[in-house]
Amino acid sequence: MATASNLTSITLDRQLALDSGKALDNVEIAYETYGELAADKSNAILIFHALTGDQFVAKTNPLTGKPGWWEIMVGPGKPIDTNRYHVICANVIGSCIGSTGPASLAPDGRPYAMRFPVITIRDMVRAQVALLDALGIERLHAVVGGSMGGMQALSLAANFPERTDRVLAIATTARHSAQNIAFHEVGRQAIMADPNWNAGDYYGTGASPDKGLSVARMAAHITYLSEAGLTDKFGRRLQDREAKSFGFDADFQVESYLRYQGLSFTDRFDANSYLYITRAMDYFDLAEEHGGASSSGSLADAFRGAGDTRFCVVSFDTDWLYPTSESRNIVHALNAVAAPVSFVELSAPYGHDSFLLECPALDRVVKGFIG
Amino acid sequence: MATASNLTSITLDRQLALDSGKALDNVEIAYETYGELAADKSNAILIFHALTGDQFVAKTNPLTGKPGWWEIMVGPGKPIDTNRYHVICANVIGSCIGSTGPASLAPDGRPYAMRFPVITIRDMVRAQVALLDALGIERLHAVVGGSMGGMQALSLAANFPERTDRVLAIATTARHSAQNIAFHEVGRQAIMADPNWNAGDYYGTGASPDKGLSVARMAAHITYLSEAGLTDKFGRRLQDREAKSFGFDADFQVESYLRYQGLSFTDRFDANSYLYITRAMDYFDLAEEHGGASSSGSLADAFRGAGDTRFCVVSFDTDWLYPTSESRNIVHALNAVAAPVSFVELSAPYGHDSFLLECPALDRVVKGFIG
Repeated sequence: MATASNLTSITLDRQLALDSGKALDNVEIAYETYGELAADKSNAILIFHALTGDQFVAKTNPLTGKPGWWEIMVGPGKPIDTNRYHVICANVIGSCIGSTGPASLAPDGRPYAMRFPVITIRDMVRAQVALLDALGIERLHAVVGGSMGGMQALSLAANFPERTDRVLAIATTARHSAQNIAFHEVGRQAIMADPNWNAGDYYGTGASPDKGLSVARMAAHITYLSEAGLTDKFGRRLQDREAKSFGFDADFQVESYLRYQGLSFTDRFDANSYLYITRAMDYFDLAEEHGGASSSGSLADAFRGAGDTRFCVVSFDTDWLYPTSESRNIVHALNAVAAPVSFVELSAPYGHDSFLLECPALDRVVKGFIG
Repeated sequence: MATASNLTSITLDRQLALDSGKALDNVEIAYETYGELAADKSNAILIFHALTGDQFVAKTNPLTGKPGWWEIMVGPGKPIDTNRYHVICANVIGSCIGSTGPASLAPDGRPYAMRFPVITIRDMVRAQVALLDALGIERLHAVVGGSMGGMQALSLAANFPERTDRVLAIATTARHSAQNIAFHEVGRQAIMADPNWNAGDYYGTGASPDKGLSVARMAAHITYLSEAGLTDKFGRRLQDREAKSFGFDADFQVESYLRYQGLSFTDRFDANSYLYITRAMDYFDLAEEHGGASSSGSLADAFRGAGDTRFCVVSFDTDWLYPTSESRNIVHALNAVAAPVSFVELSAPYGHDSFLLECPALDRVVKGFIG
């Protein structure tokens, strides 16, 4: 994994209380901004990243050398136009791109590893609201996120509705389904099965659970793509060979692609962060959070304080990880509290990952909603 | 893994030529029979098992102590009625329940391990046709199989059409899709990532790649169930606790279930067999097999010699592993060669595994087709 020195970050001047009942001191939040903040601070947009994402939404990631993960959407003249808006994107706590996470040093000077507290999506949002406070931004023009970013957008709307005018939630859900949890559990078990994981204490040992993390990423990656998308992209085509090898090499292009996805992921991501962030996603259930002690709550209750915040919910027809039915649940809940919400299911062939890829229809929706 | 001594088996008296160009000598085929063979040998039904199945279709598996895997369908008075039919079920080659596979001893007296040749679905069928020869059964009343069993049924129809009157293929496909291959590759990589796998040479070491195999099984198991089925069965219910633990225990029932599925699988299955059988499934492409050297072939060509063999193809509406579209491809190909075929998509909530579970509609289809 690359080191995260020389990243822009602030250290929160207050303790961060967590849903678990624990608290974190000296929380560091690594973030990037794009475009000028208006004098009245009215033009700020907070973008939340997904599970393995980072703050480099619209500039080259200095750790990987790769372009920003949403340059297609964010930048000068783009649907989220940095000539007009001041975009903020922060690495979530629990991650490993500069914000406090399991690889960070605990007060005793050693890495937290599995001593890091289990965090929730709401905890991630709390940390970013604290960042907004530090930046002196009272109210955002919009919060925007896809996948886990969408969960954070919804969580902010539910818990800090006074902090934003608009909420744009893309390809997401208000609660992780049994199937979502199951896929994450496979990934976690793959990491924990790797002897190099060593109960999380692998920092500084020179060995890390790359094989386990790679398998976890491979399994997850399948869920980000549609069956039809995989067939279009790879089908049963062979990789650099005329015939099957009758062996266990990567005969098929799809095998070769997956192995590459798994391996390259281990260069940029920390296995313990993968454990903590998937756990936060699995714990996410916005309705439950806002129910009484003896009730599982209702999703509408979560949005009851949303006031005049406007919502836009977007799903993709080929997304089987967070299918359109999940977005409909969100929209129904918003309707139940008479929140202003627009909803669209877009047609795109790439499954869940569609929000990250070329999709002119999404551009139009985002541009129209952000204004 | 339990040992497979005292199982019924025969050793083939001829060499088994394989698609890879290699051959196996002294092939052992472990099998079980149910019901009496008629004097004219006209009432035999061959049932093919799925990936991790075995020959104990309708009697207790002596290695696991568990009931036969299809007692719901096969037995006295059942849809496949052993009062009328003589049912044969053989463990596929490459497996580990008594038939020759990677755990078997090679001619040099040591286990094959990864020296075992890569086999195909057609090779599995060849072995079972050799078993039929040894048993003196020229023509079957029917071949029946679900999932990988269905692949074998289709392969027999394509390669040995003179051996059966009827072919019943359930919840299956004529070729593995990119997504199917991808999930299998995740499983194989999980096994190979386990240091106990030791390049396949773990027999007799006292250590086996149980953790890797367990992860492979967990990933595969998700694909056998529908999203709705998982939600019905588990939802977000917690396992033996009132509240989330804010830790990495199996908080959710679905996690606990998956962990159990993974662990218990390692008691009954050999990791190398899992590698070889998933590879055989990924290689399966009935159209390609029956094309010319320079062509990818057409599925209809595969069935051109099927003569008066009758087909029945069954899919389940919630099966996303081998969805109904795959069955339709098979039916279209059979129609193209004017083969007598009936096709039905059944409604069942359990996804791919529906064929193994209580499904009265399937009972009626099977009983009607078998006669």
